[in-house]
Amino acid sequence: MCPPGCLHSMCRTATRRGLLKSGFTFGLGAATAVASNPPVAIAATSAKIAFSETIDLSHALYEGFPTFSGDKWFTVEHLATFAKDKVNLNRWTIVEHSGTHVDAPIHFSADGMTADMIPISDMIVPLVVIDIRARAADNPDTSLTPDDITRWEAKNGVLPEGCCVVMNSGWHKLLGNPKFTGNDDQKRNHTPGFHAEAAHFLITERKVKGIGVDTLSLDTGLNSGGAFPVHYEWLGSGRWGVECLANLDAIPEVGAHLLLGTPKVRGATGGPTRAIALI
Amino acid sequence: MCPPGCLHSMCRTATRRGLLKSGFTFGLGAATAVASNPPVAIAATSAKIAFSETIDLSHALYEGFPTFSGDKWFTVEHLATFAKDKVNLNRWTIVEHSGTHVDAPIHFSADGMTADMIPISDMIVPLVVIDIRARAADNPDTSLTPDDITRWEAKNGVLPEGCCVVMNSGWHKLLGNPKFTGNDDQKRNHTPGFHAEAAHFLITERKVKGIGVDTLSLDTGLNSGGAFPVHYEWLGSGRWGVECLANLDAIPEVGAHLLLGTPKVRGATGGPTRAIALI
Repeated sequence: MCPPGCLHSMCRTATRRGLLKSGFTFGLGAATAVASNPPVAIAATSAKIAFSETIDLSHALYEGFPTFSGDKWFTVEHLATFAKDKVNLNRWTIVEHSGTHVDAPIHFSADGMTADMIPISDMIVPLVVIDIRARAADNPDTSLTPDDITRWEAKNGVLPEGCCVVMNSGWHKLLGNPKFTGNDDQKRNHTPGFHAEAAHFLITERKVKGIGVDTLSLDTGLNSGGAFPVHYEWLGSGRWGVECLANLDAIPEVGAHLLLGTPKVRGATGGPTRAIALI
Repeated sequence: MCPPGCLHSMCRTATRRGLLKSGFTFGLGAATAVASNPPVAIAATSAKIAFSETIDLSHALYEGFPTFSGDKWFTVEHLATFAKDKVNLNRWTIVEHSGTHVDAPIHFSADGMTADMIPISDMIVPLVVIDIRARAADNPDTSLTPDDITRWEAKNGVLPEGCCVVMNSGWHKLLGNPKFTGNDDQKRNHTPGFHAEAAHFLITERKVKGIGVDTLSLDTGLNSGGAFPVHYEWLGSGRWGVECLANLDAIPEVGAHLLLGTPKVRGATGGPTRAIALI
């Protein structure tokens, strides 16, 4: 049950055609969208950030990197090679949401910030990791819930202001395994994600800038077939997300910072991103 | 006059056809390449890095962003729009060296590191800015020379180990102005860059991980018509470069760090990059 003000029911007009033609999903059900909200203006922290170690949280992107639909979202053309031309040069054809990537607010909103508009200072934030690996191993349709956040806070204290909350489902280790997309024979996907109530709790009860997952979608796979309740509410609130994170077992559940190096492309709805933990 | 061991004359076999077909350049003269060198293994610093301010050194990339050849290296296709589809999603067609971007060693070598192979820790480095704006304003064909480095060191001390040396020619303010590409009526380009002797000095006499420019090329425009002496020697030595930096007037000539968030694309010769100064 969603609390008052929950945006899930405000719009149910996403088109099956539009999402399908983009190769964005399949098995699309009733789609859910929120009315456009202005971007959230969370002040950048002026606190000093110090680190002496970096961990790369990005998967390497390659032709055939998994997508829910199975469509190829990334291809490479070799324009010149050193053997022939004494220079190596490639051209990519890439859907913005390929591999480890950012979702900008505009991805699921009418007038949210595009990727180039998000200030750098809003993409260098305290990093919180919530571990649901054990539950996800038993049930790929599980989700990160408000209870998981409450448990994390009981151990670590209230979520740091302006942080990114990342779900560690263990899926970052499944790249190359059919479980990574979790396709079934009815073209549904079985992968963990945020529960809509957890996203809503973080928006209304905490001051959080971003959420991240080690799966292909902020939503569960089953909710990424059209409804996308987390995408619509979270991105619609002006916040960003990051998907397909790697190496989450290597970072502490609190204390690190996350830096997202997203190409600054005018009007982008996201982009392939170098995600870095500063420890 | 190049010192002994200079690699400029080791190979003159780059093909005009190969570079031209890629839209990489025009007015190609005799091309120069070095034999392949193994990647440089400079140990990552374990020193603590602290910052409380960030400055975005990236230009926003857009269709029509300048290239020397005038070819369009970046286009966007809108696969879905919120107005029609309740989701915004784009596909890019992009040559790896568009906008603010990294040159990986493989770009101008047979077997150098690809962008995904460069460790994150090698792309977070002390940032040195050498200002040649006054000279470049008078002569767009000028270059950053060993004398400029010597003058910088006389004021600031020896270059920090593992740093990136960036040329501030003032060109970062010329985006949108014909001077940015500096095309003349003979299809040559007049823009500043590193002198080959400066690159060689940094390789042989200092411990430097990268060089950067606020122009379209590590080389001068006139040397980017085929010879590319700095590209061949610098990248051929296993080091990286970064081109088209922005906002260089906003950062100190020493004391900041540079972080390059380059998409981790398997086999990439470079890539559009979020360049960030940590201050």
